[in-house]
Amino acid sequence: MQNDTIMMVHGSGGDATGALIHEIFADAFSNDVLNQMEDAAVVPGSGTIAVTTDSFVVTPLVFRGGDIGRLAVCGTVNDLLMRGAVPKYLTCGFILEEGLSVELLRKLVCSMAETAREAGVQIIAGDTKVIEGAGGCYINTAGVGFIPDGTDISALNAEAGDAILVSGTMGDHHAALLSERMNIQNDITSDAAPLTDMVLHLNESGIPVHTLRDITRGGLATVLKELAVASGKTFVIKDEAVPVSEKVRGFCGLLGLDPLYMGNEGKLVAIVPAEHAQQALELIRSSRFGADAAIIGSVLEEEPGELYAETSIGGRRVLDILQGEGLPRIC
Amino acid sequence: MQNDTIMMVHGSGGDATGALIHEIFADAFSNDVLNQMEDAAVVPGSGTIAVTTDSFVVTPLVFRGGDIGRLAVCGTVNDLLMRGAVPKYLTCGFILEEGLSVELLRKLVCSMAETAREAGVQIIAGDTKVIEGAGGCYINTAGVGFIPDGTDISALNAEAGDAILVSGTMGDHHAALLSERMNIQNDITSDAAPLTDMVLHLNESGIPVHTLRDITRGGLATVLKELAVASGKTFVIKDEAVPVSEKVRGFCGLLGLDPLYMGNEGKLVAIVPAEHAQQALELIRSSRFGADAAIIGSVLEEEPGELYAETSIGGRRVLDILQGEGLPRIC
Repeated sequence: MQNDTIMMVHGSGGDATGALIHEIFADAFSNDVLNQMEDAAVVPGSGTIAVTTDSFVVTPLVFRGGDIGRLAVCGTVNDLLMRGAVPKYLTCGFILEEGLSVELLRKLVCSMAETAREAGVQIIAGDTKVIEGAGGCYINTAGVGFIPDGTDISALNAEAGDAILVSGTMGDHHAALLSERMNIQNDITSDAAPLTDMVLHLNESGIPVHTLRDITRGGLATVLKELAVASGKTFVIKDEAVPVSEKVRGFCGLLGLDPLYMGNEGKLVAIVPAEHAQQALELIRSSRFGADAAIIGSVLEEEPGELYAETSIGGRRVLDILQGEGLPRIC
Repeated sequence: MQNDTIMMVHGSGGDATGALIHEIFADAFSNDVLNQMEDAAVVPGSGTIAVTTDSFVVTPLVFRGGDIGRLAVCGTVNDLLMRGAVPKYLTCGFILEEGLSVELLRKLVCSMAETAREAGVQIIAGDTKVIEGAGGCYINTAGVGFIPDGTDISALNAEAGDAILVSGTMGDHHAALLSERMNIQNDITSDAAPLTDMVLHLNESGIPVHTLRDITRGGLATVLKELAVASGKTFVIKDEAVPVSEKVRGFCGLLGLDPLYMGNEGKLVAIVPAEHAQQALELIRSSRFGADAAIIGSVLEEEPGELYAETSIGGRRVLDILQGEGLPRIC
């Protein structure tokens, strides 16, 4: 690359685009499939496939605990895992704003490559476009995974009597980003992580997992309300059982935020039959990124689609999905 | 939707995002898989799969002969076809700028849905993000297709003695966009089109197609040079054999543009053994969007990776890939 910053010419499709692709992307993502540089990647398929996509517009591009590159891999890998799929392949589409530092781009791309290795996926196809702007970077990833025979994990499958688990503390990613943006000095770190290890452990355990969902935009309450509606069940969680780190709890107290509505990028909800809850908890706790997992509530056959939080003195309050503004550009 | 324009709240992941998804996207794209609204779409797979991605940043969003929605389907579908895959599934990721008119968004989404039907693909997963800005819209699509047994179409496969065909006139998309941007009154129309019909005809014909490539950013010369390099062969085309419409030729003459470096969005290069060239030409001409197809040159065993254009009086000039600036944001 002759340039220090991205310019419109890098989107021309000509020699400058070629230099960008070869010197930044091809090196970092190198694998036999991508290296063919064909119009589409060709890979062996098998049985039932899961397909998903996510675009990432997070700001700032680099934050404590991660960056947009790590996020772009984790978000899509986790979405595949939530259907019980074994994630295999990612595509990535970069939209670069003029003025983006080439050094920063290289760092983001290397972070993607490293996170892809951590998550056990190959990046097999890519695309780059350039727009006017002020040095921003947007990344889309799409993912393909394969679902083992007999796996049926879905938002529809929660049953009365099931236990609701979360894999760790709530709100870390949201609080880390907000801290960066407000220039608040603390050491809250994003939880951005690929949950491959955790979900594959659950799959292999023989526990009949009914539902998995990663807890992103809108936070735990939004996710649980959506699952309650999808399954037509009542979900009840215990306020005091929801894990929140002391740092994040303090941060929320200061700013009047509710951790139930704050996004994560490396946490999931698991819904399993009550008799398997303890085993699932132990499995999650022994997996990477699962040390703070907890059983937080249960599924009931009351009014379809309702979500309640129970306070420590036994009162119940109704929770809905996030209303109005969340934190913009969190992922 | 209570709003006329997109606002940051539509990216919150809460109720406003839900309204946007249900009222704009879900209706237009409705199918059994997408309607499940799960984290990942689950579909039956088969054998060898092709996977690709493209982001679209074209400006203006609507132009004569198409819009960013049509482009976003055609670009990705065509990339799958270029490996001989039967396109089946698309994902779409929207990045919306604040201020985008909801009516315009609806129009773009409907155009995507219609083009997907035309191309024979289902949109099975999606994502929406909102960023600050001035009413822009960026779309990423990723595509999955299945490759019939025995198909081997690749940039590597051109052989000495092959004929080089193009499926129609060069530069239409590029000239249409440039006309819009320069406010030049003419009736040049983008050629944005899904080439499903054409490629499936070729596949079913039994013609041993060696290479297919769609002619986008960088234009025909860039594509042919890349294919010459990939296959290690010499490509020679005849200037006068390259189809260019009279309108586009006139437009290029006025502005000093070379149609060989102007992008299309519904044209392909096909490389086939010379003895099958005439049959391939007739098949392409009888397919949708192929009426102006032509045989434009041949593959030789001279210097590896060279591309020449022969003038009508027999002279040869060297062509390289596009150097420097092309037309920005053409796709």
